[in-house]
Amino acid sequence: MRRLLCLLFVFAAQAALAADSTEPSRTTQQETINRIFADALAHGCAYDQLRELVARYPGRLGGSSNLDGAIGWAQHQLTSLGVDRVFTQDVTVPHWERGAPESVTLLRPGEPPVPLNALALGGTIATPAEGLTAPVIEVRSLADVEALGREKIAGKIVFYNRPMDPTIFRTSTAYSQAGDQRNHGPALAARFGATAVLVRSLTLAHDDVPHTGTTSFGAGQERIPALALSTLAADVLSAALVRNPDATVRVVSHARLLPDAPSHNIIGEWRGSERPDEIIVVGGHLDSWDVAPGAHDDGTGVVAAMEVLRLFKSLDLRPRHTLRCVLFTSEENSGNGGKRYAQLARVSGEKHLFAIESDNGGFAPAGFNLGNPAGDAHERAARWRSLFEPWGVWHFQKGSGGADVGPLIKEGATVAGLMPDSQRYFDYHHTRADTIDHVNPRELHLGAAALAALIWLIDTEGL
Amino acid sequence: MRRLLCLLFVFAAQAALAADSTEPSRTTQQETINRIFADALAHGCAYDQLRELVARYPGRLGGSSNLDGAIGWAQHQLTSLGVDRVFTQDVTVPHWERGAPESVTLLRPGEPPVPLNALALGGTIATPAEGLTAPVIEVRSLADVEALGREKIAGKIVFYNRPMDPTIFRTSTAYSQAGDQRNHGPALAARFGATAVLVRSLTLAHDDVPHTGTTSFGAGQERIPALALSTLAADVLSAALVRNPDATVRVVSHARLLPDAPSHNIIGEWRGSERPDEIIVVGGHLDSWDVAPGAHDDGTGVVAAMEVLRLFKSLDLRPRHTLRCVLFTSEENSGNGGKRYAQLARVSGEKHLFAIESDNGGFAPAGFNLGNPAGDAHERAARWRSLFEPWGVWHFQKGSGGADVGPLIKEGATVAGLMPDSQRYFDYHHTRADTIDHVNPRELHLGAAALAALIWLIDTEGL
Repeated sequence: MRRLLCLLFVFAAQAALAADSTEPSRTTQQETINRIFADALAHGCAYDQLRELVARYPGRLGGSSNLDGAIGWAQHQLTSLGVDRVFTQDVTVPHWERGAPESVTLLRPGEPPVPLNALALGGTIATPAEGLTAPVIEVRSLADVEALGREKIAGKIVFYNRPMDPTIFRTSTAYSQAGDQRNHGPALAARFGATAVLVRSLTLAHDDVPHTGTTSFGAGQERIPALALSTLAADVLSAALVRNPDATVRVVSHARLLPDAPSHNIIGEWRGSERPDEIIVVGGHLDSWDVAPGAHDDGTGVVAAMEVLRLFKSLDLRPRHTLRCVLFTSEENSGNGGKRYAQLARVSGEKHLFAIESDNGGFAPAGFNLGNPAGDAHERAARWRSLFEPWGVWHFQKGSGGADVGPLIKEGATVAGLMPDSQRYFDYHHTRADTIDHVNPRELHLGAAALAALIWLIDTEGL
Repeated sequence: MRRLLCLLFVFAAQAALAADSTEPSRTTQQETINRIFADALAHGCAYDQLRELVARYPGRLGGSSNLDGAIGWAQHQLTSLGVDRVFTQDVTVPHWERGAPESVTLLRPGEPPVPLNALALGGTIATPAEGLTAPVIEVRSLADVEALGREKIAGKIVFYNRPMDPTIFRTSTAYSQAGDQRNHGPALAARFGATAVLVRSLTLAHDDVPHTGTTSFGAGQERIPALALSTLAADVLSAALVRNPDATVRVVSHARLLPDAPSHNIIGEWRGSERPDEIIVVGGHLDSWDVAPGAHDDGTGVVAAMEVLRLFKSLDLRPRHTLRCVLFTSEENSGNGGKRYAQLARVSGEKHLFAIESDNGGFAPAGFNLGNPAGDAHERAARWRSLFEPWGVWHFQKGSGGADVGPLIKEGATVAGLMPDSQRYFDYHHTRADTIDHVNPRELHLGAAALAALIWLIDTEGL
């Protein structure tokens, strides 16, 4: 029902636009920004689109049929928004599969085995079919592994158990600080002869939900099995190792790397009325982890970017510059979608004025991070702070956008990322719990409106 | 386990305090505020206390045994926080009971009856045991009822169906604007001879969860049954009335008003080291609606107020003024707890410097509303904005605190209310869905830290 209304709304808006496309806005900036937010809150379609995306195509990992299905779905959505053209870019992406469910089991002489909730990390390999069993050495950092050296590490399972720092306000900062354990810990342990790696899940939640994610090995380096333990399972293992230093763990994983697969970025383009050769991008990434419905990460970024186009249409805000909704592929396990988009922009000599993405969840927007070659984009944008404050958006900080639009800064673009409230994001990030019921429609629609408002200001006034 | 850690933490902090109670803080204001927030995020006990409160004493409505149980629980909690004294104030409160479950059924000739999810409103009365059946007249406002007059209203069920305005950013504003239908609509309809009233639930969520709340009748006025319909049920009824204007509805309610009951405000007091005769209050209300676990409303306010004391203890921030944690009774259906506290302050000549409450849910804090006799409290407090912004708190607006501390402004106090993110609050407000799983521990603990930080600034620097 609401979905139907959404479509009707788009068509009605297009009709109005056709009838009146040259009429300039006579409202003040604040009035226009208020109209953008009010329209998103009253008529936003992003939540209904998100429900459809995650219900039909959960687990949209590179190389999967669900990612291919989501790409087709996105093309249809963009086409029905009535943009001037919808096109794709070929992108080669890694193809990794989890295979049959993994397992991690704590073994102590004379005690029953204890299953520990775990998920294999993207890019890792399988154990022997019967699994591998080895003693465990717990560490808090990569430096610990360096210090212990090969004689202490070889033949063991290395267990990285440094928690995210709960005292940091922005959870993405705590995530980055603890992230070296997952991103580079397995490769380092492998160099010292570890047989496998366990990593404490990157979350501030204290529960039994394991969080997957990617890990990197050197080119040509021999890979080893590596899995993330839920934070509760990590605490169980850590406590057991204190009482039984000779406890062992059996790890079973069926993960495998397949040959790279073809994929695509999807682009919906609306030609600018005055400067069609200067491009503004709003984007999100279509892919998600295999076990995750990918509601917050990054279904919300995808539907928010499409909602920006709907808002411009429905409010008759014809962009002066060319406005592109870019839905990137393979952010999760390669970043190849964003790199490919920037590479093609360079070779084709496209001028990108501004590129913004939403990839921190669909929570209530608090601000933006901005970066440009001159390093002053965040200060320039802060002059608009009073226009945003009535809608709860107040923070403008220096940054580099996100993984997908970040590469465009080298092409001279100003890049940005939406900064929603960050407290809940890592409760769901890269898990089976990244579901639609954890997304609030108003918070999602406020975020889409914040993207549209900043784009409208840059399109009409320039940064 | 964590609960135990919380208690140990308090005792350790008290020991430290005893050993070092005269040592002045040498940290800068920003350093102290950062310590407050970091301690709340790393060691906050509010969430664990909340889990205990809502598990043991859900449905804490005035006159209920669960409210009495919660009062005893709160006394124990405050005592174990090591305050100088814990005392109570006698408060007489309304005693209303829902009785057996209510029902609302749509009846149309030749069609099967359709049950409509509903909850009786506090203060309303029962229908006859077999229920009452009458035609329904849908209105959008109290003015509609005035305009229709007795001849159109008498003998009918009046159905107030004006939704909350989704385009307003602060949901509490939209709630207030639509609230006249629930607060005063039944009394008005009764004066025109309506047999019963149905009201669209006060929420922006589009679901089948009815939201109860209080409604007022004139002194001595004859009351009628009045119930809130879920927003989906309201839409079903509205659509049915378009197709079948002669549809009727059967309402069954067993609600009843009992004689007023005794209850209590609970106060934990920590004497000021320099100005013990000047009082600072931090509070929340212990009561909740009968069907609601009362996690957000207002369990979070209760445990956040207690967390403020824990933070002052654990960080050795000895208050110069007397600091009281006041847990008010009967906010939901009378406001008598807050009125009684202010009345006793006046008769005993207590000087209240500052009083703040949290009664808008345990979501991430965005700011404060402040009011004082001079009307400039929010401008004065805004000078501290830069101290709060690193923790996401940036907004200082004029206001009057909340229902419980508001009456103290007449006694010369500066009053304030915490303003958390408001987008999700009315999804749960006054419903069975106001449960612990909708509270995020970090958001709750950030709110408690914001309360403690503002109180510490006012205690040390003055407003």
